[in-house]
Amino acid sequence: MAASQFEQVGRAFVEHYYRTFDADRAQLLPLYQPQSMLTFEGQQFQGAQAILQKLTGLPFAKVQHQVITIDSQPSPAQNSPTGVLVFVSGTLLVEGSEQPLKFSQVFNLMPLPTGGYFCFNDMFRLNYG
Amino acid sequence: MAASQFEQVGRAFVEHYYRTFDADRAQLLPLYQPQSMLTFEGQQFQGAQAILQKLTGLPFAKVQHQVITIDSQPSPAQNSPTGVLVFVSGTLLVEGSEQPLKFSQVFNLMPLPTGGYFCFNDMFRLNYG
Repeated sequence: MAASQFEQVGRAFVEHYYRTFDADRAQLLPLYQPQSMLTFEGQQFQGAQAILQKLTGLPFAKVQHQVITIDSQPSPAQNSPTGVLVFVSGTLLVEGSEQPLKFSQVFNLMPLPTGGYFCFNDMFRLNYG
Repeated sequence: MAASQFEQVGRAFVEHYYRTFDADRAQLLPLYQPQSMLTFEGQQFQGAQAILQKLTGLPFAKVQHQVITIDSQPSPAQNSPTGVLVFVSGTLLVEGSEQPLKFSQVFNLMPLPTGGYFCFNDMFRLNYG
């Protein structure tokens, strides 16, 4: 993949991911597969259902993500073509708070046999300051 | 790999990486291979030599990293066994400054045929705030 291709994949995924998260995070389910892993503030979850249960169970109804940086690189995949490793920094604002929280998140996207990508690795951390 | 194994790999790599970085960063060379990639504050480098040139050229002689969190997950590799994706947050203090800077860094480690791991993907960002 040329540089612009995996950067496009990363940017498109990130835009879709946070737009969906902020509108109705139950709709993130198709982005995960049974082998997907989420580490959320150090807590580990495996499989689309367990991951979605965690995300939909977060104790706020409204949230707004604002992306500041997106870095993307090709990553090894079990079969060609390659995956895309995406590293995001940004802020999020949850309902009832006026204080944006800084966060960093890593997605390792793997190609689906049907085209497109799913999220194999997902790691999220708030950056307390 | 069981959970404890890839967490051990991640922790051992991170400890070794920053200890080496802070003592003599030219010694990081063996951790990279020709296919390794570094994205440093959005700038891209490929190959051990180009990466080391960037790291050794950073405009400070002394630096101290302090790791706050390490998250590790198994990641896809072109051949089994799997790789290890490591997500770090911490602070760094460069000479002449009393202000620790927050950073996040992602390493995607791939197994070497000779045993051990090398760093395939490396992405670094300061978290301004």
